[in-house]
Amino acid sequence: MTDFAATKAMFDLPEGMIYLDGNSLGPLPKTAKARVASMIEDEWGQMLITGWNKAGWMQQPLSIGDRIGRLIGAEPGHVVMGDTLSIKVYQAVASALELNPTRRVVLSDNGNFPSDLYIVQGLLKSLGADFELRVVDPEDVAANITEDLAVLMLTEVDYRTGRMHDMKALTELAHAKGVMTVWDLAHSAGAVPVDLAGCQADFAVGCSYKYLNSGPGGPAFIYVAPRHVDAARPALSGWLGHEAPFAFDLDYRPGTGIERMRVGTPPMIQLAALDASMEIWDQVEMADVRAKSITLCDRFIAGIEASCPELTLASPRDGTTRGSQVSFAFEEGYAAMQAVIARGVIGDFRAPDIMRFGFTPLYIDDADVDGAVAIIADVMNNRLWDRPEYKIRAAVT
Amino acid sequence: MTDFAATKAMFDLPEGMIYLDGNSLGPLPKTAKARVASMIEDEWGQMLITGWNKAGWMQQPLSIGDRIGRLIGAEPGHVVMGDTLSIKVYQAVASALELNPTRRVVLSDNGNFPSDLYIVQGLLKSLGADFELRVVDPEDVAANITEDLAVLMLTEVDYRTGRMHDMKALTELAHAKGVMTVWDLAHSAGAVPVDLAGCQADFAVGCSYKYLNSGPGGPAFIYVAPRHVDAARPALSGWLGHEAPFAFDLDYRPGTGIERMRVGTPPMIQLAALDASMEIWDQVEMADVRAKSITLCDRFIAGIEASCPELTLASPRDGTTRGSQVSFAFEEGYAAMQAVIARGVIGDFRAPDIMRFGFTPLYIDDADVDGAVAIIADVMNNRLWDRPEYKIRAAVT
Repeated sequence: MTDFAATKAMFDLPEGMIYLDGNSLGPLPKTAKARVASMIEDEWGQMLITGWNKAGWMQQPLSIGDRIGRLIGAEPGHVVMGDTLSIKVYQAVASALELNPTRRVVLSDNGNFPSDLYIVQGLLKSLGADFELRVVDPEDVAANITEDLAVLMLTEVDYRTGRMHDMKALTELAHAKGVMTVWDLAHSAGAVPVDLAGCQADFAVGCSYKYLNSGPGGPAFIYVAPRHVDAARPALSGWLGHEAPFAFDLDYRPGTGIERMRVGTPPMIQLAALDASMEIWDQVEMADVRAKSITLCDRFIAGIEASCPELTLASPRDGTTRGSQVSFAFEEGYAAMQAVIARGVIGDFRAPDIMRFGFTPLYIDDADVDGAVAIIADVMNNRLWDRPEYKIRAAVT
Repeated sequence: MTDFAATKAMFDLPEGMIYLDGNSLGPLPKTAKARVASMIEDEWGQMLITGWNKAGWMQQPLSIGDRIGRLIGAEPGHVVMGDTLSIKVYQAVASALELNPTRRVVLSDNGNFPSDLYIVQGLLKSLGADFELRVVDPEDVAANITEDLAVLMLTEVDYRTGRMHDMKALTELAHAKGVMTVWDLAHSAGAVPVDLAGCQADFAVGCSYKYLNSGPGGPAFIYVAPRHVDAARPALSGWLGHEAPFAFDLDYRPGTGIERMRVGTPPMIQLAALDASMEIWDQVEMADVRAKSITLCDRFIAGIEASCPELTLASPRDGTTRGSQVSFAFEEGYAAMQAVIARGVIGDFRAPDIMRFGFTPLYIDDADVDGAVAIIADVMNNRLWDRPEYKIRAAVT
């Protein structure tokens, strides 16, 4: 059983703050400071170029990939770290399209991250005018999985409301129609149990700076199913994805397995911070995280609904179909959220009217939920955002 | 006049080591430790998500881009940091090709980084069978600039020998034939003065972890000429390149100017290390670096040629056509370099027979050159690599 009091003690959390925005940027693991300092001083500073071998830098994107792989149900050796999530989406969709070469349509939904849609728009424009991105409402995805689709690209947990797609059912439906799947796990990895292998997902991508707490701009990850990886052509064919990066051949030959999805030199300082965070995750079972997350979210919903009649639940009420976050709709939500933040409860706002709160069992407990509810009720019931001292600037993301 | 004794004192250099591999990975600026620690503790730890505004994270890829821009002759506001060099090469060549839409050929040379060639091979395969990468010998580039070329992609300084292309002459020749240029400055930025604006270069890219000393995996940069930037379509169209990233529109609209070449969330811990390194660069004039670099390289060549008859100069003898490195060819170069490294002089080996040494005036001085020459002469003249204690493993890059 995961000891969440112990994990909470492993984070540096600012005094007097209840941080419900770990779905945007996770907080600082206490050991990250020392781990990064040692990487800088003892590895970069002393080993210099030999650090690539001596300190194991070169292999770290794979070993950390496997540790994240455990949290998302990936087969060992099939997850690698690097780049940003946008780049990993590009790689996954580009490869998936080529594995389905007679088709030209990518299906997604308008609850996906806009950035994922942007990346596909850019990719398809490069590929030619006969490619199409089709975007439907989240609830219409299943009905729109048709035999003309090449790729179904979805984010499992809606970043605004926390609504979850049924990864297993939609993947099965896609496969029945000959469609490849690309799953974005940005709000899933470290938030909800994921079973990539069990769902037969084809490609998956995600980021490490939200629930995985790797710090701002930490590297992303990519998963390619074992049955595809040796056939997947890397569109971004960089030297570290080459079969023999140090042979300096003039022609690209993809490396074996997931290594081919590496591109350029990995960000070793960011990886050191992620490594420290993974030391916490290594002690955690996702089933425990999920159970506690649902408890925290349910408690928050009950507390808010009992005290803030003006807020309307915008997340699924059923915890099993909701990610690790709760959103409420409120017309003056932007201003209200600024006042909530000014009072030390950090959530965020998403247009047009969503007040969003993330619940992360590793460092948020029942007392935090109750404290947040009390502050939000005070803000709402006294319309604190109308007072000049609460009109502060929003956090950006 | 740059004070190189002062800059040398700003680096942590391992005791007893002469580090001539700053062209692969630059050493640790002393202030980087504190700068990164403060970024982690005071910014990530205390500001959390509000760091994007409060700590200025969001703008840092642009402000640091401008500081690097000063070193490479870029117009202010036209360089941005992010991703890896491979990704930036992809962006630059993809955009350059679209700006020359009736042509299908990219010309490069076999002295370019293999990674740059790999990236273009991958890009062209995505674009279609009618696209071609043409690779010629470096000395034949000028003669092969023909009117069927869309893009000329070259690395200014050859990573093996230090031979320099004439950026101004080749860019003029390219423009006369209607060809776009993409210059890779990986071995130029911080090594030799570059005048992108004066040369009328179209696109340029480079990395920060070599001569710019940002640490392993530090972010890359991209430059787009002012006359092209608002017409350049970003192939990797991520959310931070969007006109309004936080509006969460479903359709991509490129941002103004160089911002459109941003892709995903920037690696803020790596950027903190780069920021510390740039505090040194801010005090440095590239003309001084160039003068001192030529002096150091000439001194090294003279010393080696006087003491090591078996080594054959593989770099240009004329310092004005050579980057900030010197290479010697030697049949048993791989084994010999391992022995040199074991004796504390860190250079590296490049197949088939190149022993490579980088000279970086910020922290290498005449005494280092003389010390390195003495050790290399001892290794060569006593064939130390034949002794078992010197058969150590090579540094990887």
